Amino acid sequence: MKWKRSERLVDMTQYLLAHPHTLIPLTHFSSAYDAAKSSISEDLAIVKGTFEERGTGRLITVPGAAGGVKYIPDASREEAQEIIGDFMEALSDPGRLLPGGYLFMTDLLGNPGLMDRIGRLFAARYKDSDIDAIMTVATKGIPIAHAIARHLNVPVVVVRRDSKVTEGSTVSINYVSGSSRRIQTMVLSKRSMQSGQRVLLTDDFMKVGGTMNGMKNLLAEFDCEPAGVAVLVESEDVQEERLVEDYVSLVRLRQVNEKERTIELVEGNYFREGGN
Amino acid sequence: MKWKRSERLVDMTQYLLAHPHTLIPLTHFSSAYDAAKSSISEDLAIVKGTFEERGTGRLITVPGAAGGVKYIPDASREEAQEIIGDFMEALSDPGRLLPGGYLFMTDLLGNPGLMDRIGRLFAARYKDSDIDAIMTVATKGIPIAHAIARHLNVPVVVVRRDSKVTEGSTVSINYVSGSSRRIQTMVLSKRSMQSGQRVLLTDDFMKVGGTMNGMKNLLAEFDCEPAGVAVLVESEDVQEERLVEDYVSLVRLRQVNEKERTIELVEGNYFREGGN
Repeated sequence: MKWKRSERLVDMTQYLLAHPHTLIPLTHFSSAYDAAKSSISEDLAIVKGTFEERGTGRLITVPGAAGGVKYIPDASREEAQEIIGDFMEALSDPGRLLPGGYLFMTDLLGNPGLMDRIGRLFAARYKDSDIDAIMTVATKGIPIAHAIARHLNVPVVVVRRDSKVTEGSTVSINYVSGSSRRIQTMVLSKRSMQSGQRVLLTDDFMKVGGTMNGMKNLLAEFDCEPAGVAVLVESEDVQEERLVEDYVSLVRLRQVNEKERTIELVEGNYFREGGN
Repeated sequence: MKWKRSERLVDMTQYLLAHPHTLIPLTHFSSAYDAAKSSISEDLAIVKGTFEERGTGRLITVPGAAGGVKYIPDASREEAQEIIGDFMEALSDPGRLLPGGYLFMTDLLGNPGLMDRIGRLFAARYKDSDIDAIMTVATKGIPIAHAIARHLNVPVVVVRRDSKVTEGSTVSINYVSGSSRRIQTMVLSKRSMQSGQRVLLTDDFMKVGGTMNGMKNLLAEFDCEPAGVAVLVESEDVQEERLVEDYVSLVRLRQVNEKERTIELVEGNYFREGGN
């Protein structure tokens, strides 16, 4: 089959979106479509211009024999504000209030479209941060971790509370949970990480930051280092000092009034340069 | 901005891929690009032809005032065979053997690119099955459930082993695990499902099918019904009768020999019409 430019554009767009943060040699496209490299370069310029017009991503061209093109997912400020606004609106429904002042968020974490958009937001924020893996704690952080990981093209590592036979040998640590001050355990399969990796930590909710701090201690056991902390919702209701200072959040939970059934939310620090 | 056809094609492809199983009125595109409906129809014909050439998806056009276009993710037989082949090759590494004859799969479940491809496979298999939600049990089925859900545009419901305060009120059932014959508990937040939904069950591994059967019992509590069962790996090593007969699997684990350190795998029933 001889591909026309219009067909090549559709197919290349599809291929690039499925392979973020991956260097694709131009020969991949020129042989796939039986087209000259100069035509492929013209195609890529059109794709690049359209992605940039939308703010959904950048195409970076690496010149030379070992070069090619790389798609870097991005999000415009406008789009980020829209996503965060939608998320805040959904969260502010008083029907979400649970006994003890907790917010029901499970349905939002189970919404794959929302998770995909939020994943791209965080991937955009950390696009230049040289990240090797994403770490989260079971269970609720897993959809967020996977959504970010897909846009950064890195693996997900899931820390568990208990050890399972299907994990093989594990490393376990004890840590003090921030708010309840209880001793808790974190377990990670030894095969999950190599030493020297830079790891982005993520979770759905952060109060004092005990869980994040626990993950940092676990990283140290694997000779890895944190490359950032990404949370959906941070709580402002912190009596004691926060254990984690350098993080990026989408939404900040100001106050919950169980009696009046009100939830006060504000934008997180996503747009602030360098995070909190 | 006035969009050229080439730019429209790139942008439409991106939009359609981000909105699977969603009816998009043609006016959405004609107003976004300030273009005549006839031009949009011509654009869509090009996108449709390219997707079909690749086998990655179909575009369905619904005529009339309430009509539009719908992108249905698909997978060609060739691509399905390639994905399953890659997965089997990765799984057959003897280094995955764990004490007790278990296979280490956690790294594969943490690979977002692989999960995305596998998700599209299952979404293609169940594209006409009228599915309202995907259900799995924490923890390991979550990445698969989300990958399928994203391509089918339906929510994910995660069953837990324990009740958590952030889940609100819950429904819990006891069931007998298939292989160990132990009584186990499953808990699901009451807010997670509405009655009358058709639910696709999924998990990473299935032996006798006790967990799947437990989820079916849980569905009954919510007046919902199973619409299918999708598993990555099924085990052939079943002494007793399987509790679940109607399922789709990618890979079948024939035999594990701990002493010789060999793993015998064959293709699952994915390609068989109607599953097992």
